[in-house]
Amino acid sequence: MDQQQHVVVVGGGFGGLQAVRGLRRAPVRVTLVDRQNFHLFQPLAYQVATGALSAVEIATPLRQILRRQRNVRVVMAEVAGFDLEQRQVRLADLPSGEPGARLDYDLLVVAGGSAYSYFGHDDWAQYAPELKSLEGALHLRSRIFSAFEAAEVERDERRRQAWLTFVVVGAGPTGVEMAGQIAEIAQDTLRRDFRSVDTRAARVLLVEAADRVLTAFPPSLSRKAAKSLEGIGATPMVDTTVVDIGSDWVEVQRNGDRERIEAQTIVWAAGVSASPLAGELARSIGAEVDRAGRVHVEPDLTLSGHPEVFALGDMVIVGDGKGGVQPLPGVAPVAMQEGRHVARSIAAGTRMPFRYHDKGNLATIGRSHAVADIKGLHLSGFVAWVTWLGVHLAYLIGFQNRLLVLLRWMISYVTRGRGARVIHG
Amino acid sequence: MDQQQHVVVVGGGFGGLQAVRGLRRAPVRVTLVDRQNFHLFQPLAYQVATGALSAVEIATPLRQILRRQRNVRVVMAEVAGFDLEQRQVRLADLPSGEPGARLDYDLLVVAGGSAYSYFGHDDWAQYAPELKSLEGALHLRSRIFSAFEAAEVERDERRRQAWLTFVVVGAGPTGVEMAGQIAEIAQDTLRRDFRSVDTRAARVLLVEAADRVLTAFPPSLSRKAAKSLEGIGATPMVDTTVVDIGSDWVEVQRNGDRERIEAQTIVWAAGVSASPLAGELARSIGAEVDRAGRVHVEPDLTLSGHPEVFALGDMVIVGDGKGGVQPLPGVAPVAMQEGRHVARSIAAGTRMPFRYHDKGNLATIGRSHAVADIKGLHLSGFVAWVTWLGVHLAYLIGFQNRLLVLLRWMISYVTRGRGARVIHG
Repeated sequence: MDQQQHVVVVGGGFGGLQAVRGLRRAPVRVTLVDRQNFHLFQPLAYQVATGALSAVEIATPLRQILRRQRNVRVVMAEVAGFDLEQRQVRLADLPSGEPGARLDYDLLVVAGGSAYSYFGHDDWAQYAPELKSLEGALHLRSRIFSAFEAAEVERDERRRQAWLTFVVVGAGPTGVEMAGQIAEIAQDTLRRDFRSVDTRAARVLLVEAADRVLTAFPPSLSRKAAKSLEGIGATPMVDTTVVDIGSDWVEVQRNGDRERIEAQTIVWAAGVSASPLAGELARSIGAEVDRAGRVHVEPDLTLSGHPEVFALGDMVIVGDGKGGVQPLPGVAPVAMQEGRHVARSIAAGTRMPFRYHDKGNLATIGRSHAVADIKGLHLSGFVAWVTWLGVHLAYLIGFQNRLLVLLRWMISYVTRGRGARVIHG
Repeated sequence: MDQQQHVVVVGGGFGGLQAVRGLRRAPVRVTLVDRQNFHLFQPLAYQVATGALSAVEIATPLRQILRRQRNVRVVMAEVAGFDLEQRQVRLADLPSGEPGARLDYDLLVVAGGSAYSYFGHDDWAQYAPELKSLEGALHLRSRIFSAFEAAEVERDERRRQAWLTFVVVGAGPTGVEMAGQIAEIAQDTLRRDFRSVDTRAARVLLVEAADRVLTAFPPSLSRKAAKSLEGIGATPMVDTTVVDIGSDWVEVQRNGDRERIEAQTIVWAAGVSASPLAGELARSIGAEVDRAGRVHVEPDLTLSGHPEVFALGDMVIVGDGKGGVQPLPGVAPVAMQEGRHVARSIAAGTRMPFRYHDKGNLATIGRSHAVADIKGLHLSGFVAWVTWLGVHLAYLIGFQNRLLVLLRWMISYVTRGRGARVIHG
């Protein structure tokens, strides 16, 4: 019989993949379970939504990434839950109706990530798609480019204005990036493509409840980002709360005043909530999740009372060992460092507290504009933008995708065009 | 008032696009109507279906292609029909319920193309997707790669065999290309990606009712193509008719014997039928369409009795002026030459009979294998393959797409990999 320990890793996102890769030389068998067959480079999903990149350029097949790592088996399946007593992962039933398999584990790593949350207003999802998933990004791409097509043939002036109004909800890095890209599409990419409609008349509104954009950055960079956004034709609306969303309008509130904005295209880039797997883990140990659906883990990233179960990434809050929690942002670097930390713990057979090394924060606004906060060094403009490009290319997985993305970016920079503007689905 | 003649072109495929481009210096206004916002390079759709190319690499936005042609307006809309007396094109109603607009024309060019036909068995479509549309190709991509994923987790040996059985119906160029690519995926691309299943055990069956593959080619090239297919792991089954198709099986008949093949993935690459717009045109003049749904046009490509209405491409049969018809294959070069011919006729204000200049016939089978019949010169193997590559790159539209496709082909050739293996939707 096989005497090696069996590690089951759930989720092939940033955290899960780093955990698997970190175990490549460890004397263990690894099974990676994901419901998708690819690793999504989510930080560039907004570029798919805006026609700058093709979907497959940011989606690398997990089997291709792990082909050479012989101690890993990849299983494409949905995880239904866990049986911590039996040390089993329960897979969802197959489409054929066949009951889902159970995977025995010696060690379990759960990295289920997060999805956008509509703050209890799930009916908004149909009107305001998100772009955390590849499906969402492709859906948004069709919506955005269809809006300009519809404006071109619309005869009613008021309806045309609604087709040319884009509202992005949430001014974190993703919202800022989306607003900047949509503004560029209207002001630049499509400028000469239409005959009846002037795409430069489009309004791009970036709605944010806080008093500034990019609240994770220092206020000085927030100001620079807001100025850059205005410079390329997007309008930040801070101190503004979304009250309600319908099929072609958003109702916002600002200083007690309500306003209804007629807009056919609404992009949701506000809060996230943890994968339901966090709730599954919490239930298993009789604990509760927090408001964002996250499960509490010990400082060493294990589940309380279960040193054989790790959880990491956007779906967890990490204790600080003193009754409090570590203030970790829900970003890829945190998940990646946690994934590597878990792999090291497993390989060494020890449990060590996790410490996040913050290398900095980056957000891009549009062509040649970005802001960066790197250990207190504040960059903006072209230098920050080049830094952003380099970091994202470096972390993108796969030589082929790096080359293709670099090529697309170079062509876009020179031609101001966007090649991936296909409307379908 | 505008004294220029208004030419409405319906369809942005190979024929329609050439008609529009051919009018770029003519003193006319042109409106191009298409229900999609892109020109699809359909001859490479099978490479999208098999993960070699990304969807957007073969789909170029029509507005981008025509941006600099100032006498063209692009309208994204579905055409519902024609009013030849009033000289109007009727557009379908908008999703908002607004009644569809009518476009007045002085000259009309209809290039609606064709779609796959299931020979009256429309229920087969759900089990055996086609790959003439981008949607179909993406659907097939998910089906093909999902089949290997399902085989990996399948515990029942017979069902696993069905997941690893692929049936391609129709051995024209598209069917041959599909069978060759699926065989390469199983034998080569995925060979080291799975742990439980041996992808090289996959069966790829190419079912053809005629007595040889590639019937449009000389028999000697058909023999070479069949041999190449067998060499890379696909099995041509000639003299074999499809009798029925279910969710996971195909029933075929050969020499009077019926056989049921259990297969989870079935690809439809058999007959085509003309766009319903051919029927609309025929009805308008009290004529009938042929068995393939095509409308008859005069040798100068005009509709009988309507010198101001042209129709071309896969949806027409062209008269020879002596009571018979010209034997034109339903391929891109015919449509393109017809489109250019119509543009010349309109620009010159004359009506001239169309003559097709057959430059040859190409089909590729897999890595380094192809057959070519160029004006009686028969090529096969590597030389034909390089010819195939060059011709397809040359006709692909857009510098960016050419560069990206060339790059993907080069990387695939060296690594034997396929980067675009995303399962979604």
